[in-house]
Amino acid sequence: MPDKLITMSRAESPAQVSPRRPVMLAIAGDSAAGKTTLTAGLVEALGPERVTGVCVDDYHRYDREERRSLPFTPLHPDCNYIEIMEQHLRQLATGQPILKPVYDHATGTFGRPQLIEPTEFIIVEGLLPLHTKLARACFDVSVYLDPAEATRREWKIRRDCRKRGYTPEQVLAELDRRARESAEFIRPQRAHADIVVQFAPLDGAAEDDPLSAIVLLRPTIPHPDLSAVLTDDTRRALHLKLMRDEDGKPVDALHIHGHAPRELSGDVERLIWDSLGVDRELPETLGMIEPGVRTEPLALSVLIVLYHMLAARTANSRRADG
Amino acid sequence: MPDKLITMSRAESPAQVSPRRPVMLAIAGDSAAGKTTLTAGLVEALGPERVTGVCVDDYHRYDREERRSLPFTPLHPDCNYIEIMEQHLRQLATGQPILKPVYDHATGTFGRPQLIEPTEFIIVEGLLPLHTKLARACFDVSVYLDPAEATRREWKIRRDCRKRGYTPEQVLAELDRRARESAEFIRPQRAHADIVVQFAPLDGAAEDDPLSAIVLLRPTIPHPDLSAVLTDDTRRALHLKLMRDEDGKPVDALHIHGHAPRELSGDVERLIWDSLGVDRELPETLGMIEPGVRTEPLALSVLIVLYHMLAARTANSRRADG
Repeated sequence: MPDKLITMSRAESPAQVSPRRPVMLAIAGDSAAGKTTLTAGLVEALGPERVTGVCVDDYHRYDREERRSLPFTPLHPDCNYIEIMEQHLRQLATGQPILKPVYDHATGTFGRPQLIEPTEFIIVEGLLPLHTKLARACFDVSVYLDPAEATRREWKIRRDCRKRGYTPEQVLAELDRRARESAEFIRPQRAHADIVVQFAPLDGAAEDDPLSAIVLLRPTIPHPDLSAVLTDDTRRALHLKLMRDEDGKPVDALHIHGHAPRELSGDVERLIWDSLGVDRELPETLGMIEPGVRTEPLALSVLIVLYHMLAARTANSRRADG
Repeated sequence: MPDKLITMSRAESPAQVSPRRPVMLAIAGDSAAGKTTLTAGLVEALGPERVTGVCVDDYHRYDREERRSLPFTPLHPDCNYIEIMEQHLRQLATGQPILKPVYDHATGTFGRPQLIEPTEFIIVEGLLPLHTKLARACFDVSVYLDPAEATRREWKIRRDCRKRGYTPEQVLAELDRRARESAEFIRPQRAHADIVVQFAPLDGAAEDDPLSAIVLLRPTIPHPDLSAVLTDDTRRALHLKLMRDEDGKPVDALHIHGHAPRELSGDVERLIWDSLGVDRELPETLGMIEPGVRTEPLALSVLIVLYHMLAARTANSRRADG
């Protein structure tokens, strides 16, 4: 303790005391791809006091009224303050506070900006967090959510009708209107993510069958040693497969089976959780998308991303101490 | 030109091309000290396309409603996002854009933030731009407006009643409520300014007599050579006097006489204007505080500050070229 006090008083001003760098996680994906759900799962697992959430869709340049007369949708980079987003991400990544703009999705207008002070982990989710090289350089781990398009449309209709007051026809028309910009600006971010999570029904599954997930683990970051988890006993819950991605590049694909027995998935989850060394119990609600409805592929995806956030934290601490 | 293109294409990304640094001017002072009037005069003289105005009172932390239950006024640094202000000043000083918060003084609430892209000159005015060392380090030239207290009270009553809908009694009560924090946080900035402008009636002047001004020129920046202007012919309009400031430190004091004949002051103004090399005519409206009402001390103060902004620009260009 005395050592620390001496160091502090030697510094010329508090701003020169280099703050501990937070772990920066990006969750990119199209509208209703599951970004908020994944974020909520991570916050729950780590505890809200350790995590700061930032939605970069708040960096919209125009309000809803102004956009009516413009030729592009919020998916277009020109519709967003990309340079300010880059600036703020850089500031957060170096442990500085930001005054973040706030866009109210309910009213389509801008509200009072919000002070964000970095905590141990920062989760940045939105449509375009991986759009530019400068933005990508700010992240320790990046995730792209890539659900099957039919699944995403279903999710978007359900959410926008329930929570944002639209009719299904309005949502479908909006999806069509956005399709070109989605392909041009959102989807290319997939190639830059360390982890791609694809939720989809299994081929030939009935409508009510639980979704499965394929988690692509790119060799851009070191992935967990899953040998203790991937055994003959757990094959019904998940298995790993070497495959080629859309672009022909080799990638590890972790297949998580939604139809696996709950007990088996639960065992796997506890096995991973215990290896993480988080100082709390495995949250009961992990993987729950609404009260009573669990999805094990979501729970396992959360745990994989969590592994990477904690690994990045260890790496950052080593750098700070070394 | 070809040289420049080569340099540009060698840079790894546009953000690494160091933008030309703008000239940063601070105008600090208490409420109704004349900050907006001085800013308007400078913008008019330079042309609005070359100047960006930033009011740092927009960095309020609380809206009017929230302040009702708080023990301090907007003059208190804790009532403002000082760290964010410092961050934004640093960004502007290095040629980067900011997304500035916007506080609406009419409604007392926060509005949509505003993108500020630096131009050649940036004028930062407000209650606390010189409060911290990090903020002060961002400025090329700093001004503190220090009108006689009776004059400032008169100005504040006039403005707040005309433009903000208060009664004189309300304004006087607010002035009393703020007096302690004004002395504690606003006034100490005076010691850090390169230039202090004091508007006051001459001793024994009648109520309607024009105000005079004393412009203190601290030896912290090189001041103009006024020998061509300060002659026996112009003594009735202005004179320079070596004196001691309140703190005992030596300072040059330029006395500008409000009662000097308009023609003589006009001659002095043209003499200074011509020496500045601004590529336009001396604005007719220089020193006008409302239609038809001119004050020569204001016009001359604008010209002195203008001299320093242009000198800083020359110094910055030399540094950029060298």
